[in-house]
Amino acid sequence: MALLDRLGKEWLFFDGGTGTILQDWGLAAGELPETWNIRHQDKIRTLARDYFAAGSDIVNANTFGANRLKYPDHLEEIVRNAIKLAKEGRHEARRDDDGYVALDLGPTGKLLEPLGDLPFEKAIEIYGEVVRYGASEGADVIVIETMTDAYEIKAAVLAAKENSNLPILVTVTFDEKGKLLTGASVETVVALLEGLGVNALGINCSLGPKQLMPIVQKMTELSSLPLIVNPNAGLPKSVNGKNVYDMHEDEFASLMGEMANLPVQALGGCCGTTPLYIRKEIEEVRKHPFPYPTKKHHTYVTSFSTAVEIGTKPRIIGERINPTGKKKFKEALKNHDINYILSQGLAQEDAGADILDVNVGLPEIDEAATLVEVVKELQSVTGLPLQIDTGNVEAIEKAMRVYNGKCMLNSVNGKRETMEAIFPIVKKYGAVVVALLLDEDGIPDNADKRIEIAKKIYATADEYGISHDDIVFDGLAMTVSSDPQSALVTLETIRRIRDELHGHSILGVSNISFGLPERSILNANFFTMAMQNGLSCAIVNPNTKSMMDSYRAFNALMNYDTNFTDYITAYANVEKPVVKATTTMSL
Amino acid sequence: MALLDRLGKEWLFFDGGTGTILQDWGLAAGELPETWNIRHQDKIRTLARDYFAAGSDIVNANTFGANRLKYPDHLEEIVRNAIKLAKEGRHEARRDDDGYVALDLGPTGKLLEPLGDLPFEKAIEIYGEVVRYGASEGADVIVIETMTDAYEIKAAVLAAKENSNLPILVTVTFDEKGKLLTGASVETVVALLEGLGVNALGINCSLGPKQLMPIVQKMTELSSLPLIVNPNAGLPKSVNGKNVYDMHEDEFASLMGEMANLPVQALGGCCGTTPLYIRKEIEEVRKHPFPYPTKKHHTYVTSFSTAVEIGTKPRIIGERINPTGKKKFKEALKNHDINYILSQGLAQEDAGADILDVNVGLPEIDEAATLVEVVKELQSVTGLPLQIDTGNVEAIEKAMRVYNGKCMLNSVNGKRETMEAIFPIVKKYGAVVVALLLDEDGIPDNADKRIEIAKKIYATADEYGISHDDIVFDGLAMTVSSDPQSALVTLETIRRIRDELHGHSILGVSNISFGLPERSILNANFFTMAMQNGLSCAIVNPNTKSMMDSYRAFNALMNYDTNFTDYITAYANVEKPVVKATTTMSL
Ligand SMILES: [Zn+2]
Ligand SMILES: [Zn+2]
Ligand SMILES: [Zn+2]
Repeated sequence: MALLDRLGKEWLFFDGGTGTILQDWGLAAGELPETWNIRHQDKIRTLARDYFAAGSDIVNANTFGANRLKYPDHLEEIVRNAIKLAKEGRHEARRDDDGYVALDLGPTGKLLEPLGDLPFEKAIEIYGEVVRYGASEGADVIVIETMTDAYEIKAAVLAAKENSNLPILVTVTFDEKGKLLTGASVETVVALLEGLGVNALGINCSLGPKQLMPIVQKMTELSSLPLIVNPNAGLPKSVNGKNVYDMHEDEFASLMGEMANLPVQALGGCCGTTPLYIRKEIEEVRKHPFPYPTKKHHTYVTSFSTAVEIGTKPRIIGERINPTGKKKFKEALKNHDINYILSQGLAQEDAGADILDVNVGLPEIDEAATLVEVVKELQSVTGLPLQIDTGNVEAIEKAMRVYNGKCMLNSVNGKRETMEAIFPIVKKYGAVVVALLLDEDGIPDNADKRIEIAKKIYATADEYGISHDDIVFDGLAMTVSSDPQSALVTLETIRRIRDELHGHSILGVSNISFGLPERSILNANFFTMAMQNGLSCAIVNPNTKSMMDSYRAFNALMNYDTNFTDYITAYANVEKPVVKATTTMSL
Repeated sequence: MALLDRLGKEWLFFDGGTGTILQDWGLAAGELPETWNIRHQDKIRTLARDYFAAGSDIVNANTFGANRLKYPDHLEEIVRNAIKLAKEGRHEARRDDDGYVALDLGPTGKLLEPLGDLPFEKAIEIYGEVVRYGASEGADVIVIETMTDAYEIKAAVLAAKENSNLPILVTVTFDEKGKLLTGASVETVVALLEGLGVNALGINCSLGPKQLMPIVQKMTELSSLPLIVNPNAGLPKSVNGKNVYDMHEDEFASLMGEMANLPVQALGGCCGTTPLYIRKEIEEVRKHPFPYPTKKHHTYVTSFSTAVEIGTKPRIIGERINPTGKKKFKEALKNHDINYILSQGLAQEDAGADILDVNVGLPEIDEAATLVEVVKELQSVTGLPLQIDTGNVEAIEKAMRVYNGKCMLNSVNGKRETMEAIFPIVKKYGAVVVALLLDEDGIPDNADKRIEIAKKIYATADEYGISHDDIVFDGLAMTVSSDPQSALVTLETIRRIRDELHGHSILGVSNISFGLPERSILNANFFTMAMQNGLSCAIVNPNTKSMMDSYRAFNALMNYDTNFTDYITAYANVEKPVVKATTTMSL
């Protein structure tokens, strides 16, 4: 039976520790474990056999550290042997029919740019080579594990997708605060992995079962995918300079029974665990009814570290990185003045933006190359997630590929051709995608038709396997001075996106006021009205006080701003006369 | 059968001209028509008999000008004779069982204060005396007609109510623009008369049937009461210095058939019409099916001239005439500095208030007397309707009595005792009454209970015969800094008043922000949010720019401000940098 026919439908069990066992079996300090695939093939085969025999359904081949950085020579032999030996062990354990050999991918051992010097595409190449060897040798699944950097995870997953058709399972290593080494939160990791379309995700190593529980708990609330938890046998103790994990197998098994209830669908172990631990764990977990994973409805846009949730309260998308109508910005683009662009980003971050829109479309420049460069540079100076804003498909693909996190993409629309060009890219890289409510017939002048287009976009997203949670509809703020009904139509559209579609919405708010005096008054009030109708995201200039006034007041009044912290922080020190109260309440 | 059992349920017909016929019969120029009640009793009896015989159901006794100003002597005899003679004429026409003799009240002939020198209470006395004579002589109904001043109408109706239990029918005289002599519009007249609880209303004299039709049409759209139309026989021609009305009776009858279809429920004639006209009119009208009057759902607050509709777009109620928290205003009240108070009113009118709240409650002063004085003085300098704002029942009754128009009253609430004290006053004088959504259990902290109280108030209003259209619920803006849910509760209450009760709402907007910095930001945005949830009236300071910004922007965006006229007028000449547009639409 294929793994994907069982994953998320019944309990599945991983193996336990490898490195800790090989050390017991004589692996010397400094000796690379994967060399044993050549020098100690019997031991590697035995280890796999023992895990399969203990009940593990998925056993990692001994390829965790196998990549050309560590093995400039013999890499292919090491990888192929690992798969071969694991398969032999499986055969000896008579698990050919229901055991799966995993190509195991760990960290490259190097930091990616911009933190380190490994280029992103180079990381994909490194992983890709290993994937090609493992897949052609007959691995059943790719397990990417013990990952500590979101960007490297993305490289490994892309390599797996581009060099095989195998199922992809990813487990990461959190610290006790629920952060990866390079800062990613649980939300960030889940959003990234679900966006990339992996088949299951979870945690390995990191800590013991007890310490992992709150983090796993959080993961169960966020993820719709089957969850994997492979903890260590407790926290390490240092004995003679060696990390020792000495939680008793019965305690481990009992805690993993609790863990299963969180609920988790696939379990195993990591450092310090052995086939005995796994056998006891399986016995314990099987006492519980199997918990099917359920669809969650969160929408996160993330950077490498920060996740911004869409739908819980309105979000500010800073609109200033955009040449339209901005002479200075155009000059900066033409002169390759990246610092000016970055300064626009940082100013918006300071002013309260949650996400930065990035539009560098200008006829005179290579938009794709510039967009990639600006995205990379921005991500080196700000942790804010970005909205990639272009209609250029080449620029979209290149920018989404290099983006570190799950970006927002602006935009598709209801035109079949546009969706066919862009949805496959969204499906591959993962993104929260803005969909303009227009189609081949243009921009509808009424909410009924806009909602109809929204439903058509949902239906097309379904064809591509893109979740409705990842669609944000642009209700289209059209200038009210050319059509006095236009604000009403847009506001009704926003309300119906919330009430009828249970979806998310976005507006370029200031479009509403073209051609009228004192535009900031109309903009600020239209913004408040749109928020009240359920606007999820506003593309605005966060440096405009009246817009942020609307935003902070709305959040304060809606009780989104706990203890009025943001409001008071922004205004407590501003000196102004206060307005007198009415006495309606005087009776 | 009693008149009220037939009025509005079948066609009823009035008589036609009296003065023009008496002139034909020899009434000399300058001779008072009512003297004939003593000197030419046969002619007066004959006139009534002829009208009853022609088919008139309601025939006016010859008392139109009968009051003590014109008849310092013999008034009682004149009035009693008029009724007696009309009853004798009815008997001769064999209409004892289905004909009604009306005590006819016309204008006093003097202008009331402040335009003239007749005090309002004096006018009530003058009418009251006539009503007592007529009622005790056996009149069936009081017809107040040819009225040209709203305040005098109010005096006559109050006199009728306070000195008899007879049905009250009122017809007024409009110019071709649909205005009374002292400025009242059709809306103002209908609101006043419906508020005062008359049994039918309409138009007499004024113009010919053709010219009256657009005004009657408007009345049919506004009034829920049976309508009366008694036109002249066309427009007057001056022949030998005398007004002559010479439309042919067939043309008159044919036009009145059209008039009946507007629809109108009671018809007759005025100057130039005779029993012949009435007989032909009746023949013509009876060809049409009787149109039952239907309940309209307008809410107007009026002054003597101006009607402000509640419910079509939000209305601004100026909150500045109120001593609460205002040292200078308190001083002005104590020092009887009426000019200061008036200046507060005028400043708010200039700033855009639709209605002025008037609260003069201060422990040190006689609130009732001060309120009456301030109301009278304000009405002599501004045409804006007023909101009488006090919980003092004596002050309410006195101020509502003297008020010229249909005022707004702030407030009752859900307490049984309060409603029992105030609803009878509202029923007597007519008012749009603000009802606070609190009761014996205090102010509910949730919208469910507030809506429940609103329903209780509606039910109690039903007991008193007060229309739901005349109730405006105060959703209670409670300070959000003491309860962070309070804005949400208030906004939900406002929305449900609109969506579930189809009712009107009001808020003292600025209450929301007590205790927080930069209150105007919260106030302005809460105001916008409340308007979007259907707020009908806002008690605010119209001198505060941010509040009026919200108001004007909301109206512009909702297409309530046709061609953005108000918006552009307010802002076109303000110099400010404009906000740059976003490029969401760039695809
Ligand atoms: Zn481990
Ligand atoms: Zn491990
Ligand atoms: Zn007349």
